[in-house]
Amino acid sequence: MEKIIIKNYEDAELNSPILISGLPGIGNVGKIAADYFIEKLKMKKIADIFSEYLPPQVFLFNSTVHLVRDSIYYKKTGKKNDLIFLAGDFQGTTQEGQYELSYKIMEFLEKYNISKIYTLGGYSIGKIVETPKVLGAVSDKKLMKPLENAGISFPKGEPSGGIVGSAGLILGLGKEIFSIDGACLMGETSGYFADPKGAKQIIEVLSKILKTKIDLKDIDEKAKQIEEITEKMKEESKNKTTKEDLNYFG
Amino acid sequence: MEKIIIKNYEDAELNSPILISGLPGIGNVGKIAADYFIEKLKMKKIADIFSEYLPPQVFLFNSTVHLVRDSIYYKKTGKKNDLIFLAGDFQGTTQEGQYELSYKIMEFLEKYNISKIYTLGGYSIGKIVETPKVLGAVSDKKLMKPLENAGISFPKGEPSGGIVGSAGLILGLGKEIFSIDGACLMGETSGYFADPKGAKQIIEVLSKILKTKIDLKDIDEKAKQIEEITEKMKEESKNKTTKEDLNYFG
Amino acid sequence: MEKIIIKNYEDAELNSPILISGLPGIGNVGKIAADYFIEKLKMKKIADIFSEYLPPQVFLFNSTVHLVRDSIYYKKTGKKNDLIFLAGDFQGTTQEGQYELSYKIMEFLEKYNISKIYTLGGYSIGKIVETPKVLGAVSDKKLMKPLENAGISFPKGEPSGGIVGSAGLILGLGKEIFSIDGACLMGETSGYFADPKGAKQIIEVLSKILKTKIDLKDIDEKAKQIEEITEKMKEESKNKTTKEDLNYFG
Amino acid sequence: MEKIIIKNYEDAELNSPILISGLPGIGNVGKIAADYFIEKLKMKKIADIFSEYLPPQVFLFNSTVHLVRDSIYYKKTGKKNDLIFLAGDFQGTTQEGQYELSYKIMEFLEKYNISKIYTLGGYSIGKIVETPKVLGAVSDKKLMKPLENAGISFPKGEPSGGIVGSAGLILGLGKEIFSIDGACLMGETSGYFADPKGAKQIIEVLSKILKTKIDLKDIDEKAKQIEEITEKMKEESKNKTTKEDLNYFG
Repeated sequence: MEKIIIKNYEDAELNSPILISGLPGIGNVGKIAADYFIEKLKMKKIADIFSEYLPPQVFLFNSTVHLVRDSIYYKKTGKKNDLIFLAGDFQGTTQEGQYELSYKIMEFLEKYNISKIYTLGGYSIGKIVETPKVLGAVSDKKLMKPLENAGISFPKGEPSGGIVGSAGLILGLGKEIFSIDGACLMGETSGYFADPKGAKQIIEVLSKILKTKIDLKDIDEKAKQIEEITEKMKEESKNKTTKEDLNYFG
Repeated sequence: MEKIIIKNYEDAELNSPILISGLPGIGNVGKIAADYFIEKLKMKKIADIFSEYLPPQVFLFNSTVHLVRDSIYYKKTGKKNDLIFLAGDFQGTTQEGQYELSYKIMEFLEKYNISKIYTLGGYSIGKIVETPKVLGAVSDKKLMKPLENAGISFPKGEPSGGIVGSAGLILGLGKEIFSIDGACLMGETSGYFADPKGAKQIIEVLSKILKTKIDLKDIDEKAKQIEEITEKMKEESKNKTTKEDLNYFG
Repeated sequence: MEKIIIKNYEDAELNSPILISGLPGIGNVGKIAADYFIEKLKMKKIADIFSEYLPPQVFLFNSTVHLVRDSIYYKKTGKKNDLIFLAGDFQGTTQEGQYELSYKIMEFLEKYNISKIYTLGGYSIGKIVETPKVLGAVSDKKLMKPLENAGISFPKGEPSGGIVGSAGLILGLGKEIFSIDGACLMGETSGYFADPKGAKQIIEVLSKILKTKIDLKDIDEKAKQIEEITEKMKEESKNKTTKEDLNYFG
Repeated sequence: MEKIIIKNYEDAELNSPILISGLPGIGNVGKIAADYFIEKLKMKKIADIFSEYLPPQVFLFNSTVHLVRDSIYYKKTGKKNDLIFLAGDFQGTTQEGQYELSYKIMEFLEKYNISKIYTLGGYSIGKIVETPKVLGAVSDKKLMKPLENAGISFPKGEPSGGIVGSAGLILGLGKEIFSIDGACLMGETSGYFADPKGAKQIIEVLSKILKTKIDLKDIDEKAKQIEEITEKMKEESKNKTTKEDLNYFG
């Protein structure tokens, strides 16, 4: 089989679209944020991506099989830039798979003349914080100023290990091979569990950047639920365990 | 070498055949069931599949080497649907191997115009039960009703992790790439050892679905033997060990 | 690069040669035996095989680099069957590598019309024995009788796991793909260290089978040295340790 | 994508250049030495090498992404031999990657008619020494004499395991496939941390061999800093810990 099979459902006509990528990763921050946009903006699917770089697995929804995949969606905004979103079930599970999937997707999208890329991810800080920040990394210096204005931080030397996985790679290949600039937006997260709170920060910032209003009610709800759970956990841990034990949770 | 080598022994003329796949897996439930059908219905071999996605190994039967393989068999039923069975020594040992083998086999079978797929597998419940159920998953909702009538359960949200390996993949690729519907039949099993009891349930259900009578004496025998062994184990464990220790067996 | 690069030094004219393969493995029994024949019969090299399926490594001989490789040698016997030997530094390090190397070598040798294959290996019995036996496995029943006459044992159901690696694979591919019969000769070995004693048994048996006289003095010497070392070990272990501890050695 | 993508910025005209390779490895000795030459001789970049054999990762320099890569530089010396340096972020992370990258780079450089190869590496001796030696290995005996004259040692049978990774492989492939002779220069290093002291020895020796003057001030500085740190460590360890504990550091 071809190592990556793209089932292309529609050839949309899009105005110099911005690509936003949010695949599963640390705290699932990027995936939660991307999925939220796709749902709230009622985006349409362009393509499904099946690949032997993804696990050999089907999910079950109401006993019906769903072969694992990543998917590409679009939204015509009526403004200067339409939107393309990349979201899905998994990142490539191997080093080769990471490169091949990121490259193939960029190659598939070439016909749309992507004007800019935002990749979404989580930045693990190993503890739960009140208000997670959104950290940024850019592929060109000139992108920093407008992102700072949108509330994104650029702390020196962080993340110190760089960015591993598709959030970094799509940006890196975008810059070196496809000549498209972009930025990575990383929501701070404890990294202990799927973290809508970190995702919410990204949604808000991205909504500003894309000048796209988005109803935050549902993500607020989820974030609150998680907050309550973690509050409970904290109190229980005060009574029963040391701080180290809490860190072990999840 | 080609990564998958199919030695094709015969081009059978088959009436819109149903594909049944039973490769080694949890409790070997699918393999035992498929092998039983192949033996009892005296099926003929269409092809052997050798591959570098299988272990670099030969088995020995009476000191004679048998290069590990999967094999495809058929049975002309004289009815509306002839049968094709996929069985063998191993599933692909890597993620890539899983995809490539499942895809290549489906591609090889395209000339037969497969009308439906049943993949057989085990569903590990971590304990020994009196009468294992057969769980189902379908690639199209409309297949659920007839399977429920045949006694198959569709408990909501199970298996929660979906289906991993060829039983899921053949179904998923069948649906997405080859446009063939099908179902996965999973026999409950402790998963502790090769489990003819879980396999027997599948054989009975499959026999109903395929409207093919099959002599259950030999599988009954094997299931009884295993039952006796596990009964003994249970009693011994009552005397000597805790339940947890029993779970450790195997 | 090509995944396997064969540097072909000479196109020998050979009379329906027999292929003998002895690559590193359990107790290095097969390698020691093959290297001994190559040295004692002053064989000539046909080809070197470099490959990314071998470790990315050079050995040093007198500070001079030797890129790791397998090699093919021949010996014109003046009799009915000339000899081709496969020996070298490593087996393929991955499942894919095992298949690709074995296949490619068989393919390269097709021009020589190999008449029969003997693969040499070790059979780990987990303890040191006085006189190791040589076990056999064949790709065709009719080969058993003459091998039994040469002193080879065919104990039922052993080795129970079949034969893993090139000794099994060359035989299996030889049978299924290249239609060449052959046998695997396995020298019993403790498996604790490179074992010339197990190798010696194979050399003797192979010398009979090939009707080729070979001076056993040097291998006898090495076997004796090892025997003395293991004798010492045994006595020391009697004094100091339990049998289990001895098994741990190596 | 192509598994290795070479972005070629310039086709320099070079006089039978010498290739020097210094990629990350033991104590980063080779990398530190190569990077030092590239900086001090103000070399120009010929090409960047991106590859799925490198980690799927971007580094961040002042919040700007840098897709991980290896790079090729040159220096016109005005003398008999111009210089080509290979340096970068990573070696190939897999066995296949090691071979493919080394081979592809040698293939890319064929147009320059490389006259000789020096690969730089570290040789781990597991302890900190006053004045690390530089050990050598050659792909042709005749290269030993001039290197000994430059102060390089050729201790018999060392390194006993040969040379693993690109420092060995470029030499081995250079000899067997590309017919270019060369040597590996290995700086002794504790291997505990990035070691400019081991690198300094290589820089000095290489400077002699290449008859290229190079300012040693900066590397001296770094080496001294490390020396002071390790001195402190030694004294602290004398007070607090056993020698074994010190070895554990790093």
